[in-house]
Amino acid sequence: MEKKGILTVVSGFSGAGKGTVMKELLRRYPSRYALSISATTRKPREGETNGIEYFFLTTEEFEKMIAEDELLEYARYVEHCYGTPKAYVEKQLQAGKDVILEIEIQGALKIKEKFPDALLLFISPPSAAELKRRLVNRGTEEMHVIEARLKRAEEESCGIENYDYFVINDKLSDCVEEIHAIVGCERSRVSRNADLIYNIREELSGISKGE
Amino acid sequence: MEKKGILTVVSGFSGAGKGTVMKELLRRYPSRYALSISATTRKPREGETNGIEYFFLTTEEFEKMIAEDELLEYARYVEHCYGTPKAYVEKQLQAGKDVILEIEIQGALKIKEKFPDALLLFISPPSAAELKRRLVNRGTEEMHVIEARLKRAEEESCGIENYDYFVINDKLSDCVEEIHAIVGCERSRVSRNADLIYNIREELSGISKGE
Repeated sequence: MEKKGILTVVSGFSGAGKGTVMKELLRRYPSRYALSISATTRKPREGETNGIEYFFLTTEEFEKMIAEDELLEYARYVEHCYGTPKAYVEKQLQAGKDVILEIEIQGALKIKEKFPDALLLFISPPSAAELKRRLVNRGTEEMHVIEARLKRAEEESCGIENYDYFVINDKLSDCVEEIHAIVGCERSRVSRNADLIYNIREELSGISKGE
Repeated sequence: MEKKGILTVVSGFSGAGKGTVMKELLRRYPSRYALSISATTRKPREGETNGIEYFFLTTEEFEKMIAEDELLEYARYVEHCYGTPKAYVEKQLQAGKDVILEIEIQGALKIKEKFPDALLLFISPPSAAELKRRLVNRGTEEMHVIEARLKRAEEESCGIENYDYFVINDKLSDCVEEIHAIVGCERSRVSRNADLIYNIREELSGISKGE
């Protein structure tokens, strides 16, 4: 029997480097993971393609998906809406792939409600000063947006206790391997091996009875 | 600040190969782990040395340790008593070492009560038939003892749900690396990084206030 994949939610402060980490995880282990593609109403940044980084939707299209219950979760973040299309995630999990959702904290908590055995990871730079430095160096946003992101980071930092793991993104490669190890170990959780444990118990019972 | 070590309890059916796995884990990562040495009233097997595999005690000596509260837990298993001397475990954890307790299921549950953040691993052979084969092949015990161990395994299998991880010992090397990975990932648990998370939150709050 093919084991069902693990649903892993990855969050982190804007500027923590989540996108880069996820891209590298997928590059190293393409057959293990599937990255959920979010829908969003924000405009593509330079180099982003519809259906690759995001499904870029109009507000009307986004609202239609909500109305038809085609999103696992959705939320408003700064000025835009983000959501997780349901169909793709369920298909990949059934196929035994570990599905990564890169979503913000409100969405992560909604996923945990619907899927109590989802694994929640929070990625952070080693310090707040380093977070600010990365946001400034990215050079894609004006100062008032950066300040809004830092303010948001402060708010989000109060939700970290809802996550399972806190992963520092200092060196990219270390961070990628740490996440890979965490998801890998999750496969050995007692709660994910109920069938196997049941079978061994039944077999032991048979041996005791001299079957 | 040196981080406190992780207390890991390893249990498993008698014959699962716990001893061999632990010995190999310590051989590969001697600076990371400290193996707690249990006290027992059972007689040494051939090749076992007092103070290495166990502290071999008389029943009177064992009862004196109980009376003086020098054991973290103790239990009777088949005909003999086993217990975990307290002082060594606490000293190694303070020094930042991950301490492994190889104890049976009753003791594991007592440890979890006293140390709620202890990590509980259960090691099992791939099947009950394989467990029986290993016990018979060991050739150190009479058939009625093997039967008692299998009966005991059946009872113990009902307690696996109290553990965090279920690790299959099929190939020694894989099993050792899996345990090493599980304990390593545990260091990134949110619950074990409260100080770090607190510091980042405070720092973000300072940046928001323009400090």
